[in-house]
Amino acid sequence: MPDTNEGNPLREGLSSRNMPEPCAVVIFGATGDLTHRKLVPALYNLAADGALPPAVSVVGFARRDKTDEVFRTEIEEAARKFSRQKINDELWSSFSSSIFYHRSEFDNLEGYEALAKRLDELDAQRGTRGNRLFYLSAGPDQFPVILENLRKSGLNKAQPGSWARVIVEKPFGTDLPTAQILNNMVVEAFPEKDTFRIDHYLGKETAQNMMVLRFANAIFEQLWNSRYIDHVQITASEPLGVEGRAGYYDKSGALRDMVQNHLLQLLCLTAMEPPAGLDADAIRDEKVKVLKSLRPIVGDDVRKYVVRAQYGAGAINGKRVAAYRDEQGVNPTSVTETYVALQVNIDNWRWAGVPFFVRVGKRLPKACTEIAVQFKGAPAVLFNATGETIDSNVLVIRIQPDEGISLRMSAKMPGSSLQIEPVKMDFHYGTSFGKATPEAYERLLLDAMSGDATLFARRDEVEEAWKFVDALHDAWAKESEDLAMYSAGTWGPTEADELIKRHGATWRRL
Amino acid sequence: MPDTNEGNPLREGLSSRNMPEPCAVVIFGATGDLTHRKLVPALYNLAADGALPPAVSVVGFARRDKTDEVFRTEIEEAARKFSRQKINDELWSSFSSSIFYHRSEFDNLEGYEALAKRLDELDAQRGTRGNRLFYLSAGPDQFPVILENLRKSGLNKAQPGSWARVIVEKPFGTDLPTAQILNNMVVEAFPEKDTFRIDHYLGKETAQNMMVLRFANAIFEQLWNSRYIDHVQITASEPLGVEGRAGYYDKSGALRDMVQNHLLQLLCLTAMEPPAGLDADAIRDEKVKVLKSLRPIVGDDVRKYVVRAQYGAGAINGKRVAAYRDEQGVNPTSVTETYVALQVNIDNWRWAGVPFFVRVGKRLPKACTEIAVQFKGAPAVLFNATGETIDSNVLVIRIQPDEGISLRMSAKMPGSSLQIEPVKMDFHYGTSFGKATPEAYERLLLDAMSGDATLFARRDEVEEAWKFVDALHDAWAKESEDLAMYSAGTWGPTEADELIKRHGATWRRL
Repeated sequence: MPDTNEGNPLREGLSSRNMPEPCAVVIFGATGDLTHRKLVPALYNLAADGALPPAVSVVGFARRDKTDEVFRTEIEEAARKFSRQKINDELWSSFSSSIFYHRSEFDNLEGYEALAKRLDELDAQRGTRGNRLFYLSAGPDQFPVILENLRKSGLNKAQPGSWARVIVEKPFGTDLPTAQILNNMVVEAFPEKDTFRIDHYLGKETAQNMMVLRFANAIFEQLWNSRYIDHVQITASEPLGVEGRAGYYDKSGALRDMVQNHLLQLLCLTAMEPPAGLDADAIRDEKVKVLKSLRPIVGDDVRKYVVRAQYGAGAINGKRVAAYRDEQGVNPTSVTETYVALQVNIDNWRWAGVPFFVRVGKRLPKACTEIAVQFKGAPAVLFNATGETIDSNVLVIRIQPDEGISLRMSAKMPGSSLQIEPVKMDFHYGTSFGKATPEAYERLLLDAMSGDATLFARRDEVEEAWKFVDALHDAWAKESEDLAMYSAGTWGPTEADELIKRHGATWRRL
Repeated sequence: MPDTNEGNPLREGLSSRNMPEPCAVVIFGATGDLTHRKLVPALYNLAADGALPPAVSVVGFARRDKTDEVFRTEIEEAARKFSRQKINDELWSSFSSSIFYHRSEFDNLEGYEALAKRLDELDAQRGTRGNRLFYLSAGPDQFPVILENLRKSGLNKAQPGSWARVIVEKPFGTDLPTAQILNNMVVEAFPEKDTFRIDHYLGKETAQNMMVLRFANAIFEQLWNSRYIDHVQITASEPLGVEGRAGYYDKSGALRDMVQNHLLQLLCLTAMEPPAGLDADAIRDEKVKVLKSLRPIVGDDVRKYVVRAQYGAGAINGKRVAAYRDEQGVNPTSVTETYVALQVNIDNWRWAGVPFFVRVGKRLPKACTEIAVQFKGAPAVLFNATGETIDSNVLVIRIQPDEGISLRMSAKMPGSSLQIEPVKMDFHYGTSFGKATPEAYERLLLDAMSGDATLFARRDEVEEAWKFVDALHDAWAKESEDLAMYSAGTWGPTEADELIKRHGATWRRL
């Protein structure tokens, strides 16, 4: 394993986190959607919380010609629309003075050289000390040229005592070979320890809380294995269709868009062994071990363990919506999957015989991401002896919305007869702590500024995940006829119900 | 073990409980506090819920001369005051027509013979089929004479096809010898299967739910032993002082008034092995096994494992209250304990090394009864490695008020630093089910009418509990100087804190 982490930032975090060092954040693709919706609001919220270092410059890098002032106005509009906190005018005016715009084509080396000069000036003016955080938020086809020019212009190399880091947005390749090519390019410019591959699911509070839940609570870790757990269900559903992303999505599909990164990451957090320590590499070592233990799904098993489907016309919340193939920008004969359900088997001691059922889909009735750990039932004795089914215990980790944890258990109904009903012990993240849950991007930006890579995907993680996913994709490419269909607004195709039924289980009703 | 139960009423209860057979309920001590506060409201509520058999007569038996009408009026007043449901006038008038008054001295055999005749008449008029439930709610000194006269008048013997049962209120003796004498008297009149020794704590929903919690939820039973549990705390606190019961209480004290029955019953429900079945005897067999496994506390161990204390003057909710010795009716030099804390060790495989800490007291800050199962902590690695203490998991079964279950666990505070805080997953009995929790006496009356003895104490339970408690009391009798004092409105004496501290624990803050 490469040593990508000095010190132990997470451990330090146990008491109070150190303020990151002053730095310049350069956003490539500064006029894009992600910058407007997520990055700028996140930076503003960090500033409002007093979490940003004393000196920060945010430099937008994009093609269009505009002044700092125009850029600031655009950005302000976006922040007012998308920030979780109401914008404070005074604070904004101070924050916006740290925002700058740098016009250049991505493929124009001179633009990078000019950027280098400008950053040096900003260092002098603002005290950002030569520290640089490059955020690759442009289209993935631009990543190679940006990385190349960062290297050629020397921006990838920090002055002694300073640092230069890169954040790479998803998608990180479209399969193993492209991911490897991209990784090789990244590594030419930045060492692994300075590379931060973003998976914003890992920045969500409940995903982070998964480790605490498992390893700070003695009772759960004791039950966390094949002796007590029957199976695990990981669901990410959304009512949205392909929206404006048809060009990208029709080439990608749900498997590559969601399973390869987000869902396999959640699976890793659920399945990993306790790490040797809390540093980034100890944790990521364990996640990689899970990925390496995934039983490859190949040949006939693809049909057996994986269901892919595409939505037809239907209704969401009473509103008619079009079939995927009728969406603008989608190939009318597309066989791209908008839904995947799969049974993942983990071949290690802890999880032998415990399937992980993963499903993800668009145009499902509700937006919901959760991990549900389904425990084995009580033996068929006593209350369970009569043939009436007593629901077994389920621990649910809700990632979104209403982040929290609940435990389903059986209790006696009040009254003189012995009627047993499932009830929920519940913990709501939002209401239990007197503070708002920060957005994933806030945490991730701060971590990258601090050099803490714990919540970012390491090279081998990304590549192992692609290896698993590519096998499925290759099998699909050969047999396009096993694409199932489901109506928009339903919970997916019947084939998915049959998939989980073979284990004697049913999908949770969300 | 005596076979005290035919059939399996609890098992039948799993679907829907059978309606009890028609019967006459005779209450000895019909003008007393318990009848007014608990028994009549319970009977009315059962009638309102449609849970009473189609024919029921309630016959009050007491000394004072009064008509049925006068008795009904008194009873109605009490019901309006103490019933959990608002009295419906129409329903009351129908219910009250089933209430009768029978005047007699307890020691006058003729009064019982007249009662027998009257019950026969009521059978004919009302269709109560010769079934009789005698409720001994008079003072315990009256129990012998009532039992004797029931026997002499033949009321204890039912006609073929009918039944005669007795409910005996607490206190059931004042020590082992008196309990044995009382048991012998009872058994002369009624077989064990028709004897129902009441402990109203067992009628509370959460106490009943304890079995369901443990044996219908696979995850808890797996954790329910010395490998995972550090210790158990059982608390019954009340802000009340001795109130109007000084005459009784000063002779009894907290140990005999509360520990011998209620708290040892809760301890048994917590500690018992899974029973072989759900019938009354299978369950009570297991409870007796726990009582037999209690390590006797004798000699010097009494001082080591038991703290007794008495309240001095203090304040409850800002109101000054007198010391116990200054209460009306209390001996001014009384050494009666109003508080007991003890460490109970259970010598069996499941509980080896797991102390049960039991505390009960008057004039404590809050009214609260709960069982708290304190799990062992996570090992001192990862989140627990820094020396900062992470609270270990606690499962709390709240008996009263706000019946429910909660699980304390550790979660990550929202925010960018890794701060771990204890949070609670919570389940509230009252709000989770759309129905009110019935009063303990409702359940217990109905069970006795149905012949289900599960929630009543069996002879051997009562006697084993006395055996354990008598040893403590005998030791105390010899050394009156080890009575500790605590101020009213505090959580008991410092000696109790030291008791639990020797195990490295502290009492829960309630």
